[in-house]
Order: sequence, then C-alpha cells, then structure tokens
Amino acid sequence: MPTGAKPPVIVLVRPQLGENIGKAARAMLNFGLTEMRLVTPRDGWPNPSAGPSAAGADIVLERAKVYATLGEAVADCAHVYATTVRKRGVTKPVVTPEQAARDIHAAGSTRSAIVFGPERSGLETDDVALARAIITVPVNPEFASLNLAQAVVLCAYEWSKGAGPGLLEQPTVEEILPPAPQAELDGLIAHYEALLEPFEYFDPPARAATTRRTLRNMLTKPGWNHLEVRTMRGVLSALERRPRKD
Amino acid sequence: MPTGAKPPVIVLVRPQLGENIGKAARAMLNFGLTEMRLVTPRDGWPNPSAGPSAAGADIVLERAKVYATLGEAVADCAHVYATTVRKRGVTKPVVTPEQAARDIHAAGSTRSAIVFGPERSGLETDDVALARAIITVPVNPEFASLNLAQAVVLCAYEWSKGAGPGLLEQPTVEEILPPAPQAELDGLIAHYEALLEPFEYFDPPARAATTRRTLRNMLTKPGWNHLEVRTMRGVLSALERRPRKD
Repeated sequence: MPTGAKPPVIVLVRPQLGENIGKAARAMLNFGLTEMRLVTPRDGWPNPSAGPSAAGADIVLERAKVYATLGEAVADCAHVYATTVRKRGVTKPVVTPEQAARDIHAAGSTRSAIVFGPERSGLETDDVALARAIITVPVNPEFASLNLAQAVVLCAYEWSKGAGPGLLEQPTVEEILPPAPQAELDGLIAHYEALLEPFEYFDPPARAATTRRTLRNMLTKPGWNHLEVRTMRGVLSALERRPRKD
Repeated sequence: MPTGAKPPVIVLVRPQLGENIGKAARAMLNFGLTEMRLVTPRDGWPNPSAGPSAAGADIVLERAKVYATLGEAVADCAHVYATTVRKRGVTKPVVTPEQAARDIHAAGSTRSAIVFGPERSGLETDDVALARAIITVPVNPEFASLNLAQAVVLCAYEWSKGAGPGLLEQPTVEEILPPAPQAELDGLIAHYEALLEPFEYFDPPARAATTRRTLRNMLTKPGWNHLEVRTMRGVLSALERRPRKD
C-alpha cells in the first residue's frame, strides 16, 4: 500500500448465499480490499457457490477467515463500522461511506472493519452495539433495498478513492494532446476563410467582420490538437479538389 | 428528486443477460434514477429474467425503451458519457464517476446519458465515438473486471450525492449554452460526410470507417451548442453553392 493507512477488513455477518459472498469478494478486490471475515455463514465454509460469482477474486475467498461471533471477528479492530439502512434508535454517529472512508484513512495503521449483515434482515441490534459508528448509504427512501454486494462495492469504492495513485489506476490524461499552437489554429481559420470567400459566405461586407469573428470563436472552441488541426486542413484541401462526376 | 437538474438516462448497449438488466434497474432506482434505455438487447425485450433480479424496481423496467442504435438512444442528449475501463487511444476527456456527476448536475436541465457496454466486451470503438467524454471507474488494475450492475450503481450513487437539497442552492450557468442534442450533431456530421464523399475523402474504402470515426470524434469534441451547429451547417451549405468566378 502506498499509504500508511491499513485497508479495512470486510466482515459479513451470517451471510446466506455463497453467491453473495463471492460477489462481495469480487467487489472488494475491484477496489483493492483483500481481507474478508465471515461470521457463521449459513451454509458453512468453504461454500462451492462462492467461487464462480467471485469471477477471479479467489484470493479473497481463500484467505477469508470464519468466526463464531462478530466480537471475535473484530477483536483486533479499533474502528468498527456497522452498515445499516434502518434507524436503530442507537446513539452512535451515523456517517456516509464517504465520511467513513476519510475516517479510516485518517486512522493510519489502526485496524478498521466495515460490517455487513445478512441479505434479508441486515444487522441485529446486538451486532450494531459492537460498532463505534454506523454507515448508512444515502439511498432513495422509496426504494432502499441495496443488495449486499452493492453495499460492499460502494464502501470499497469510497475507501479506494483515498488509497493513493499507487493502488488504483487513475484516469490519465496523458494521451490527450494539448491544443495546437495558435499559429496552427490561425492557419486553419485562414484556410476556412479562403475556401469560403468565393462562395460569398462573407457577404454582405458590412457583416463580414462579425461573420469572421463567429467563425473564429467556433473553431477556437474545440481546442483541437495539432493532429486534429491537420485532419481538418485535410478536409478543407479535399473540398478544394475537383469533385468526382457521378 | 428535489433538484432542478435532470437525472441522467442510463443506456445499456447490447446487454446480454436479462438478469443484469434487472440488477441495473435496481441499482438505478436505489439512487433515484428511473430512465433506462436499451440498445438491441441480445435476448429481446421484455425479458422475463429481468423482473426477478430487479427486486421491486419494476417501474424502471416497465418504462425502459428499446432502440436500434446508440445514436437513436441518445439523440436527445447533449452530454453523452461512455463508460469504459480500456484505453482507447481516443482524444476525449476521461473523468471519474464523481467528476461526471458534478458535470451532469452543472448541466442543469440539459439531458445527459451514461452509456454502458455489453457484459463481456464493453463498448465498441464506434459506440465510444458518440460520446463527448469517457467515464472510467478507477479500479484495481490487477482486478479490473467490474460487473455491469456495479458500474451502474457507482455512477448512480455519485449522481445521487449531488441530488440532495444542497444542489438547489447552486446557481446554474445559464449564459453558457449547452452542447446541441446528439441528433443535431449527427446532422452536422452527416452533412460533412455528404459534402466530402464526392471529393473522394473517404477513399480508399478500406480506410473509410476509420476516417469517418476520426471525423466524428473531431466534430464531437467542441461541444458546439445549437447556434454553433447551425452556423457550421451554414458554412457547409455555402460550400455546396456554385463559386463566384473571379
């Protein structure tokens, strides 16, 4: 990790379907998380349904550890976040995935855990009691049933944003060439003007200055690079040739 | 949504599995998006596999519209974002879901579309050519296979962050006209092509597709508004006239 911050542990409490455990593993690895902990998975562990839906994130499943209780699963973690969509009447801070990610990065080398409940019912009150804070994803209140893997992917994604360029591929803009120098742009504009002049595009003379300015503004807007300017010059040169008779 | 900004349209291009269409619908509705468009879904439409995995987001599926081409699906959209993980060598801005969400909110009442490719292969180069910008989710480069519904949920989630009450306070930049709708841009591109064709600009035939794509990419880049598109149409119309003899 290029950052001093330890990636959070992802804890699935009593997950029901192996398929969802696999999908959660895939979502984790997509954003650079590898440590999964399972608390009494319904169908035991390992679960043959998990592998196929992990779509290659096998390393996460192979390293997953199973615990009898949530307390044991988060015993080494100083910051435990319980994810829930439901209001629990508990007096704990409620944060978004974004805020939790910031706090986890700020925690440095201290271990953090993000805890997810079973697919159908979510975390029990006793599970939530173990957490220092609650993560609630701000969803559409009229359609709030976020599935397990998607709750995991949002938390992992938010964490990854702060994980530094070493881990994640940032969109690079290196392949975007800068706009062509002004002289090349001027050459293009002059070419357009020379081409258009015989077609009386700049008539009547009283409007010529405005028409030229409009054309310049339009051709300046794209920020075409030198290759693009050259291509457009090619377009104009083609139009200067004698057309094919059909 | 308590905002003046129009929610983006979600476009799925040649989706393979109905199950994934359903999951995408669920992900959309979780974050308040309801308008789905499908371009030639592999198994036709409606697809009985979509409903169960939508988990209640039936309204999104019922309202989904089917199109024969991506061009038609985004014809009314001024801001088209293509999602892709792959480097394409195209000179378009590459943004994160977060940046795209900000831009979409800033676009106010102008229509935006976020376009997703087929599960296995992603968007083709010709699909990407229709877009003004590329969204790349910054994933773990060693495990970058983000599934369709998860790519959708991340984009919808980022959009939803700006859709809250805070957005209402942000002034919109009314004086800057938005890019012309895709249909007008397509009209301009077709006009260029028709004009150039007799001049053998697209010869030899083996290179024609690439030449057309280059032209489309160049003319998409400016984000010309409808006045500018009309001006450029005027330029082309002038060139179709008979030149003055000097």
